[in-house]
Amino acid sequence: MATLLHIDSSVFPGQASASRAVTDAFRKAWEEQHPGGTVIYRDLAAAPVPHITAVAHTAGFAAPDAHTPEQAAAFAERVKLIEEFEQADAVLIGAPMYNYAIPSTLKAWLDNVILFGRTAGETPSAKGTPVTVVASRGGSYAPGTPREPYEYVQTYLKAVLGDALALDVEFIVPELTMAPHNPGMAELVPLFEASRERALQEATTRAKALAERFAA
Amino acid sequence: MATLLHIDSSVFPGQASASRAVTDAFRKAWEEQHPGGTVIYRDLAAAPVPHITAVAHTAGFAAPDAHTPEQAAAFAERVKLIEEFEQADAVLIGAPMYNYAIPSTLKAWLDNVILFGRTAGETPSAKGTPVTVVASRGGSYAPGTPREPYEYVQTYLKAVLGDALALDVEFIVPELTMAPHNPGMAELVPLFEASRERALQEATTRAKALAERFAA
Repeated sequence: MATLLHIDSSVFPGQASASRAVTDAFRKAWEEQHPGGTVIYRDLAAAPVPHITAVAHTAGFAAPDAHTPEQAAAFAERVKLIEEFEQADAVLIGAPMYNYAIPSTLKAWLDNVILFGRTAGETPSAKGTPVTVVASRGGSYAPGTPREPYEYVQTYLKAVLGDALALDVEFIVPELTMAPHNPGMAELVPLFEASRERALQEATTRAKALAERFAA
Repeated sequence: MATLLHIDSSVFPGQASASRAVTDAFRKAWEEQHPGGTVIYRDLAAAPVPHITAVAHTAGFAAPDAHTPEQAAAFAERVKLIEEFEQADAVLIGAPMYNYAIPSTLKAWLDNVILFGRTAGETPSAKGTPVTVVASRGGSYAPGTPREPYEYVQTYLKAVLGDALALDVEFIVPELTMAPHNPGMAELVPLFEASRERALQEATTRAKALAERFAA
């Protein structure tokens, strides 16, 4: 029985969010294929985790039995997020692009979870865990497009999830999501629709494959 | 009489923070050179601004007289930050690197301030405003070093401050700041100290030059 950690960070709820529509499809396919599995859900827009603080940061490098009460309390919050992450057999992250980069809520989650000597460093505790990132974005930042140099979601998450946390990262990228809302992008609507369909399909395929792997 | 907007985002207070030590030197030189000027200070670690929300986001694209009470309240918070930014003749930002990127608190500030059609878009309202970013970091991510590909502070802030907001961006980079705290980096302490000295000097020189420009 496997555990999926599902994280959303879009400010928009439900199907109004391009990333949530795709993480939702992923999750449904996972649950269908793996009904006995567990899903841990964290909605970072509805319930943000605290920004990292000096106390929470230094607590991560002090021996727990030397913690001040203040450090112990701050560290307990981090450990909760870290344990949730470590117990996941697969991770699913909705990571919309806001101003070329990930939402501040997702960065706050990462700053809590990345802990040198535990989740990061010589022997990252979740090494090899598959993570699927739904990196939705309003325009196109694909290789060869004029906006490619402004793509700081996939590049950054590859560095931090792939290299720092040593996870096995895969991206699903619904793009041009602003097309239906921006008259200037009207001619891009068909491309947007194709991108969304492809993303939904990839999510389903990927979720099923993972669920089968863990059910086996 | 010029106005400096000074923003810090390090989780560490005072001189315990490499970035704050340098923004502090900048600010002191500015105040000395330009005693009649104004400094607006925002400490994002002590008093974080809210993460962007769906309400605050959509309010930015609706006509103010069509705002719901909820949108009006959320937008008022954004406008306060935007006006602070727009009235600045110069901006100073302490931007330490946490997990290869800017602090989540600084991203939250950016997500509030970047507003297409006002601060960003065809005619960015603060176009050409000089901004000095103190991009401190624990190791070295300089060009040619093994960690260069993990540098997501300067690259990202260049894109968002320089290109999206059309500011005139300059970086001051105190690096290897972990050297005095990490036994494995002991031999890098002299390089760290040299980097800190250079950063403090650059901050003073830059602040004086700006203050003189505005006093003229």
